Amino acid sequence: MTSPVRPTTFIEGPRLADALGLRSLTLVSETFQWTGSFKFRAAYEVASHVEQSLLIAASSGNFGQALAYACSLLGKRSIIVMPRTSAAVKIRSVADYGGTVDLIDVGTIGRSARVAQLAEEHPDAYIASAYDDPLVIRGNSSLGREIAGMRVLPEIVVTPVGGGGLASGIVIGLGRVGKAIQVIGAEPLVANDAARSLRAGKLLANESEPQTIADGARTLSLGKSNWEILQNGLASIVEVSEEKIVEAIRTLFSAANLKAEPTGALSLAAVLQSPGLFADRRVCCIVSGGNVDPALYASLIA
Amino acid sequence: MTSPVRPTTFIEGPRLADALGLRSLTLVSETFQWTGSFKFRAAYEVASHVEQSLLIAASSGNFGQALAYACSLLGKRSIIVMPRTSAAVKIRSVADYGGTVDLIDVGTIGRSARVAQLAEEHPDAYIASAYDDPLVIRGNSSLGREIAGMRVLPEIVVTPVGGGGLASGIVIGLGRVGKAIQVIGAEPLVANDAARSLRAGKLLANESEPQTIADGARTLSLGKSNWEILQNGLASIVEVSEEKIVEAIRTLFSAANLKAEPTGALSLAAVLQSPGLFADRRVCCIVSGGNVDPALYASLIA
Repeated sequence: MTSPVRPTTFIEGPRLADALGLRSLTLVSETFQWTGSFKFRAAYEVASHVEQSLLIAASSGNFGQALAYACSLLGKRSIIVMPRTSAAVKIRSVADYGGTVDLIDVGTIGRSARVAQLAEEHPDAYIASAYDDPLVIRGNSSLGREIAGMRVLPEIVVTPVGGGGLASGIVIGLGRVGKAIQVIGAEPLVANDAARSLRAGKLLANESEPQTIADGARTLSLGKSNWEILQNGLASIVEVSEEKIVEAIRTLFSAANLKAEPTGALSLAAVLQSPGLFADRRVCCIVSGGNVDPALYASLIA
Repeated sequence: MTSPVRPTTFIEGPRLADALGLRSLTLVSETFQWTGSFKFRAAYEVASHVEQSLLIAASSGNFGQALAYACSLLGKRSIIVMPRTSAAVKIRSVADYGGTVDLIDVGTIGRSARVAQLAEEHPDAYIASAYDDPLVIRGNSSLGREIAGMRVLPEIVVTPVGGGGLASGIVIGLGRVGKAIQVIGAEPLVANDAARSLRAGKLLANESEPQTIADGARTLSLGKSNWEILQNGLASIVEVSEEKIVEAIRTLFSAANLKAEPTGALSLAAVLQSPGLFADRRVCCIVSGGNVDPALYASLIA
């Protein structure tokens, strides 16, 4: 079976580039990827390459939907552990995509404890990580290859950084042309474990789940395999304020007709946060996903 | 100079197709076209084919922005007549795209009267119509040709109907393959001059500007050249309630991550309005544009 991954959507923004002082700006939008985010690239790679026919993951976000859909396409089964407090729309999405939703009360049992329980009940299952898995990096690398195939290459690619799976995939996927391209991470300031890790030269973690609006970046730390790639693969990380994330969401809405989720807007937020880094350069901003609750989105753009 | 028109964005929606009882659904999105709507296709065709170097048009909407930008690209000038009460963001957009904005008080002078004044002041100018011009139809026909080039052809193409420029362009652009494809118009019920015209077999007009949320369909009647094409070219017109337009905007937001303006959502609204017409068919819905005021959009999706 050939890969069902959708090619990304490249959107040139010359007017926005002018306004931001960039030589050019290309939005690389994964909002129209299957299940609405880049996570499908990773999920499909995992589900199609492991031999197990049952996959288990904890995810209240995009990876859960992506894994559920990837497994459905492949005739496999998935169990997605989600907090009982997850948005109803997200629980319904996982179920619609064919996943079995396993709701937990996080006051009673942690996500990884519940996954461990399920692993014991299903010794034949594959436990899938949303980011810390070489297959995840390989799946996401297809987006880097698409960027490497652009007619005019960017000088800078800006990518959101949460667990580091996307950023690692971009670094690997750019391959040979990557030497001429800076990959810059965009991370919420209140969830800056990756930026601190780069500065310290060793992998550091947040003490508790950071309360950033960018829910895809609420990870405690980079995955180990991602850190191996990113510690030399990233040119730098811009630490982005919550305000700039909201400004970026609004800018994408008004200047590009693009609906982005907060994590998806991190890249453009980095340009707004540190314009000097990007001045007069050819910049690609990866918009990693578009799944956001309508009430939240309405409050952000109104 | 080769045409700068952007290829449209095709977005497959299998999950949405299932939910709506369609065999397949493809959203054909012009929201990422230059200036955010299909109007750029027509505006560029007009501006590049007339010999005049000054173009004048009355438009408070997408055609004004599109014409201003097309003229800028071609080194021509444009004057766009807009009511003083237009949204500030639209006035600024026209100016940003290089157009000269001519603000009028519609209580004192009508749009066409002001255009006539300007035509007298500038006898060398071309007066551009947003829809009633063979060049407009030819410009928009490129979208029909793109649909005709799909790997799997649709059985039905649904297109918004305002002045009829887009719908005519689709009929013409589908060309030879069009015989096998029904083109169905989607028109607001409160602005149903085109539907009434089809029923009567003659061109009818609304008595006053209809107060539909789909501002691109607030035209008094179809253009004459469009009527010539549409009276035989359209299979039918679905008259869409304002509620279904809002429901379609929400559906595009939630199920497709697509930001559509009300006029752009008319096609999907037609499917919601008359599901029986589309049941188990391969359907293309044209999403004609994405330019909508953030406060209005927020109120619609919240």
